[in-house]
Amino acid sequence: MPRADPAGDIGDEEFRALLTRPGLRIERIVSHGHVSADWYDQDRDEWVLLVEGGARLSLEGEGEIVLGPGDHLLIPAHVRHRVTWTDPARRTIWLAIHFD
Amino acid sequence: MPRADPAGDIGDEEFRALLTRPGLRIERIVSHGHVSADWYDQDRDEWVLLVEGGARLSLEGEGEIVLGPGDHLLIPAHVRHRVTWTDPARRTIWLAIHFD
Repeated sequence: MPRADPAGDIGDEEFRALLTRPGLRIERIVSHGHVSADWYDQDRDEWVLLVEGGARLSLEGEGEIVLGPGDHLLIPAHVRHRVTWTDPARRTIWLAIHFD
Repeated sequence: MPRADPAGDIGDEEFRALLTRPGLRIERIVSHGHVSADWYDQDRDEWVLLVEGGARLSLEGEGEIVLGPGDHLLIPAHVRHRVTWTDPARRTIWLAIHFD
């Protein structure tokens, strides 16, 4: 998932790279009410799994997607997207895999 | 994770490819008391995340590793390994990423 700005006093979103290889990065993100400050346009494909919590994600031209535990999707390179909601009442854990 | 034989009447382990690309395969595995029938020796690196449940994994020469939700590890190519236990009382969900 793209970086997202912390909203108000809820603290920073946590980003942790779990594995980095040429052409592959596996990242764990913990959100807690965070949303994207802007649209993101990435050079690489990204595959996202929502492990825990709940979120909504907008893909440009496709509307909003509701994500619960176990849901996953592919965000192809240069498909603009943003996180429009993550549950403010609990943590949301994402696994994001960026690859060439 | 490697294929594992079902033990007795507990039914088959579930394997589902979530994404397949050249040099990358993301797989979801659901175990329920399943263990590996033998050691596995793979040609590609494998990164494993235990999403839900509990398991134990043996890596040759390194002994047994206990895995709970959120635990992850890299199994380098040709490091022999086997699943020695998964919780028989609930399902265990793995995410396995095979990559070149």
